[in-house]
Amino acid sequence: MIEPKLLKGFRDFLPDAEITKKNLEEKIEAVFRSMGFVPIDTPALEYAEVLFGKGGGETDKQGYRFEDSGGRAVALRFDLTVPFARFVALHLPELPMPFKRYHIAKVWRGENTQRGRYREFTQCDFDIIGTESAAADFEILLTMHKALSAIAGGGVTIRVNHRGLFNRFLTRIGAREQSVEVLRVVDKRAKIGEVETGKLLAALLDEKRAAQVLEYTCAGGDSASWDETLDKITALSGGDCEESRRLRDLRSFMQEIGIAGAFVLDPSIARGLDYYTGVVFESFLDALPGIGSVCSGGRYDDLAGLYCKQRLSGVGASVGLDRLIAALEATGTPGTSGSYAKVAVVCVEAEDAGRNQVLAEKIRAAGIACEVFLEPAKRTAQYQAAEKKGIPFVVIKEETGSLTLRDLAKRENRTGLTVDGAIAALIN
Amino acid sequence: MIEPKLLKGFRDFLPDAEITKKNLEEKIEAVFRSMGFVPIDTPALEYAEVLFGKGGGETDKQGYRFEDSGGRAVALRFDLTVPFARFVALHLPELPMPFKRYHIAKVWRGENTQRGRYREFTQCDFDIIGTESAAADFEILLTMHKALSAIAGGGVTIRVNHRGLFNRFLTRIGAREQSVEVLRVVDKRAKIGEVETGKLLAALLDEKRAAQVLEYTCAGGDSASWDETLDKITALSGGDCEESRRLRDLRSFMQEIGIAGAFVLDPSIARGLDYYTGVVFESFLDALPGIGSVCSGGRYDDLAGLYCKQRLSGVGASVGLDRLIAALEATGTPGTSGSYAKVAVVCVEAEDAGRNQVLAEKIRAAGIACEVFLEPAKRTAQYQAAEKKGIPFVVIKEETGSLTLRDLAKRENRTGLTVDGAIAALIN
Repeated sequence: MIEPKLLKGFRDFLPDAEITKKNLEEKIEAVFRSMGFVPIDTPALEYAEVLFGKGGGETDKQGYRFEDSGGRAVALRFDLTVPFARFVALHLPELPMPFKRYHIAKVWRGENTQRGRYREFTQCDFDIIGTESAAADFEILLTMHKALSAIAGGGVTIRVNHRGLFNRFLTRIGAREQSVEVLRVVDKRAKIGEVETGKLLAALLDEKRAAQVLEYTCAGGDSASWDETLDKITALSGGDCEESRRLRDLRSFMQEIGIAGAFVLDPSIARGLDYYTGVVFESFLDALPGIGSVCSGGRYDDLAGLYCKQRLSGVGASVGLDRLIAALEATGTPGTSGSYAKVAVVCVEAEDAGRNQVLAEKIRAAGIACEVFLEPAKRTAQYQAAEKKGIPFVVIKEETGSLTLRDLAKRENRTGLTVDGAIAALIN
Repeated sequence: MIEPKLLKGFRDFLPDAEITKKNLEEKIEAVFRSMGFVPIDTPALEYAEVLFGKGGGETDKQGYRFEDSGGRAVALRFDLTVPFARFVALHLPELPMPFKRYHIAKVWRGENTQRGRYREFTQCDFDIIGTESAAADFEILLTMHKALSAIAGGGVTIRVNHRGLFNRFLTRIGAREQSVEVLRVVDKRAKIGEVETGKLLAALLDEKRAAQVLEYTCAGGDSASWDETLDKITALSGGDCEESRRLRDLRSFMQEIGIAGAFVLDPSIARGLDYYTGVVFESFLDALPGIGSVCSGGRYDDLAGLYCKQRLSGVGASVGLDRLIAALEATGTPGTSGSYAKVAVVCVEAEDAGRNQVLAEKIRAAGIACEVFLEPAKRTAQYQAAEKKGIPFVVIKEETGSLTLRDLAKRENRTGLTVDGAIAALIN
């Protein structure tokens, strides 16, 4: 006998968890589709060199790399961004530009599991490449707003910043060369606080410029309006410019469509990754501020430089699905039932179970998912089985031929129904 | 620069191929859900011993096995049956019995790619475990019929046999001990023909018994009715028994629900795998008989014996999704458009693109997926771009404020529309 154990950092999804995940993915996907994003898929396994380049780095150590039976150095993908860059480089002539894709798929990282992280998890990326237009930046922001509103059923706050404007400011104060290090410190502000951030900045630059960076990154704050904050950081970075105009355009698009209230211009948003060059954004659920950003991204100007000569700029974001699921489970948001079925047909006699499919098919034809219980048992036992599965109703075919519909939560029976009557009751 | 190449036997899914795959999966999944099947998911990576056992075998050589950075012998799953057995053994107390699950996921096999096989492909399995009832066998057959009808949009033929009845027959003619070898030969009949099958059987048994096996497996044929064939094979295996009664029950369920015409009792269906013990079945699309069985399965009486003491019987089937996709693509079945969007908003001036989301959101609110073109170009160029993406309509906001809706296939414009007018026209 072999012990049926799982690898550390890997997990099974039982029906209720898998249905929760699918519900979430389907809501997000419906938004993508309604906006004209198209899905792609890439292999889980690629050449190690394609995924990791020729060098090392932290992701390298975390990667699942091995030699296949043909002696090739291969690896499991650790994100969806690198495969997307490779995909675009390989299929460039076939892709209509601007190209808008989404990709929801598993990725693998041999990370330390002690922090509650999994080694297999789902990523959900969406990007628009091949255009530098503000309309593309806005479309990503609008998509984030729609997707997160659909999921969370509550308020969403999306914090926006512009890397380019911040760099302009850094140039002005003579700190452009330290921009990567400065960004890294600024990125920690929410965690370590303003005082500690100031100390780190002073060590990196000097007291005066540290104070200037703090002034910039703390400009506005949550109580300030987008326009006030924009005026301040525009002035601090040397006056009106292309970057400040983009932030003004985005604001006007938000206002015209009526979602401006969900957006905050936040000069402290840095996003750790080096490759962002334009707008960057993070988003938070008002009901769950503690879980951090659930969807982040930004604009970059060279997606696929590792694989092709064409410079491809774009803008995109990634939804932290696993984090969202964990958070929604913690708050008990509905939609976590263990079944899609709305009603089950009770099995009174063993020989009825096959025949009950005739009744079930009539119910299904009305668009109602219907399970047929396959083995005879006491009615009460079958009620319990349905409740345990998360099926809210059962229907019983009585000896007289009429139907009884039971609402399991209310413990109420409606008797003497026809098939159409039962369907009508289920629809209401 | 790194060459953006793929591993042999692996492939990208571009939007049209990915949409085709998703359409297919969603149709099948809708059937599963309507019947009360629930989804599960398991890790792509498991302990090699869990997936391959302690021994070798053909799948073993084809497996992607390696050592992870912690020194564990791990492997990518090569099917969904073995992980399901492991899953059931691990979670038995939590699963409501009978347990009805579906699982659609990628699997990996380092197979010879010369036969046009891929090393990464999607499997789609559904099973009912924890019941021996005929109603469960019937539910799997009904699900197959519904799923394949939903996909193929044409006739479906499902061929059914009973392993137990065949074994009874083999016992009667004194060939029970050779049953595995006999099944293996019988399984080839469709490929090698009756004469060749007879020769192989004679070599295995003797002339007389070879003729008897041929008589059994050729009983009926496509022109015979289920009942005629059943009478013959029942007589050949020694008369009425539990197995023949089950085939009779299944027939009566099919008749009552009105799908009996799609089923053939075919004593030549063997299914290679050793572990089936009851009904077995294969299914064929009438429009595409050449591609072979697109959904196969059967009843087994010990799913998880490798991992736990409980004997779990069940019945299930697997849809050959990749084969189906290849076949449907060859016949040009609709639903292979490169976009979900039904209409695109043309971009007349660059600064309109962001604002056009206001119009697009009104169209989307009516349930119509709508793309916004993000960069200005000549109208004709944008018409072509929409057509290339498979978007059938475009809408243009004229300077006057009224809308023009263009049907790209018909090359017809409707002018002077309001937003509601354009939506109404798109719905029709």
